[in-house]
Amino acid sequence: MTYCLGILVDEGLLLMADTRTNAGIDNVSSYKKLHCLADEPQRQIYVTCCGSLSASQSLLGHLLESDDAPAALAEARTMFGVAEIVGQAVRRANAVLFEAVGADKTRGASLLLGGRIGTERPRLFLVYPEGNFIECKRDVPFLQIGETKYGRPILDRVVTGATPLSAAVKIACLSFDSAMRSNLSVARPLDMAVIPAAAPARTLVRRIEKDDPYFNELSRRWSCTLVDAAERMPEPAFMAEFEAQPPLSLVTELRA
Amino acid sequence: MTYCLGILVDEGLLLMADTRTNAGIDNVSSYKKLHCLADEPQRQIYVTCCGSLSASQSLLGHLLESDDAPAALAEARTMFGVAEIVGQAVRRANAVLFEAVGADKTRGASLLLGGRIGTERPRLFLVYPEGNFIECKRDVPFLQIGETKYGRPILDRVVTGATPLSAAVKIACLSFDSAMRSNLSVARPLDMAVIPAAAPARTLVRRIEKDDPYFNELSRRWSCTLVDAAERMPEPAFMAEFEAQPPLSLVTELRA
Repeated sequence: MTYCLGILVDEGLLLMADTRTNAGIDNVSSYKKLHCLADEPQRQIYVTCCGSLSASQSLLGHLLESDDAPAALAEARTMFGVAEIVGQAVRRANAVLFEAVGADKTRGASLLLGGRIGTERPRLFLVYPEGNFIECKRDVPFLQIGETKYGRPILDRVVTGATPLSAAVKIACLSFDSAMRSNLSVARPLDMAVIPAAAPARTLVRRIEKDDPYFNELSRRWSCTLVDAAERMPEPAFMAEFEAQPPLSLVTELRA
Repeated sequence: MTYCLGILVDEGLLLMADTRTNAGIDNVSSYKKLHCLADEPQRQIYVTCCGSLSASQSLLGHLLESDDAPAALAEARTMFGVAEIVGQAVRRANAVLFEAVGADKTRGASLLLGGRIGTERPRLFLVYPEGNFIECKRDVPFLQIGETKYGRPILDRVVTGATPLSAAVKIACLSFDSAMRSNLSVARPLDMAVIPAAAPARTLVRRIEKDDPYFNELSRRWSCTLVDAAERMPEPAFMAEFEAQPPLSLVTELRA
């Protein structure tokens, strides 16, 4: 499995992905899933992939090394145009994979695509294994692929379009912390790319290793806070009433 | 979908289930999924089912109305014996279903089985669609079936064998709150059964409706607490450093 998350807020864009891959629980490895397709002052394009590693590598190879795709990417005038090119690469790589091993035997690659061209605001897309795609909009300012569920509740509750970019990075770390705690198939190192909305901007690309002091402190504090908060929540009055009832044996004796 | 949760702590046993069923998103209904197989001072047996509603109803009909199963349940001397009888009923109901509609076209029924016979402590089992089963042990004092993931992080962090029964009910409500917030296919009313460890005990059976004041207040406070707690978590220093850098245009000009 894999977990990839993209958050698009007013202040900018964040992509985050773990690095765990596995072909069965006895064949676990670590592969980078965040990839740069372009990073120049006027053109920043990043993708994070999940699903079949062979299909992911195949589509990246096509986008970066084929005769036509790199030129098409360099000429695309909007991120929508980039999404169309990337979508075709995804569709093609999965078609080759499915023909070789059978569509029911493996999960095709899918990906999150984020970036910005020229002075347009950063944009975020989810490309499905079939190559079609959706774009992230402000009503739900994030997209996920892979092992999405454990890390979703915190996003549902906290992230809005107005969330500052720095807070979005923090929430993304909390989301990954939940996913990693409940599913061994999501694991550090985590890779992230941050593209501020103000153009021209530099990109922050960073790896969060297993000994990252910020992530470890955040994880520890969040866990303590949740446990404390759960303890402080009110307990149901019906349980106090239930537990205050006399033991059943006594009732039975009184009735007898 | 459905979400069913069983928690087994030193003080007793809790089963909780939602009531939503659906055959497609345009065919949503409400069915009780918590069922009583026995409730006498010396014998309390409850199940919560998920998966195919027809298979669930078929296996319950068999357990409660057939010529042999009710007598076998009434004579079982331990909950392990009950789990064997229930497991056979699950296997049988799913086999009939799969023969009719095809095993790849539907999910068979599975269930959580909890209860206590005589003076033994309450016990909790998960019965798979194939009829085999596992028993809950103290290392991980809960079992889930159905839409398990959204509601799991809070369980992983908070529930231990030493959790008081009343707190376990509260945590179960928080777990369902997370599941219902992120997945429309889990919804109130919720049904719960609580069996204290001290024997002989009465069972608390309770329904939590959509207007339940305790659940609504818990949900509201938990949401506020999480949002506040996330806000209070430290933000990464690397983001402050990144955002303090001069704009790229300035750097480019300086370099030029």
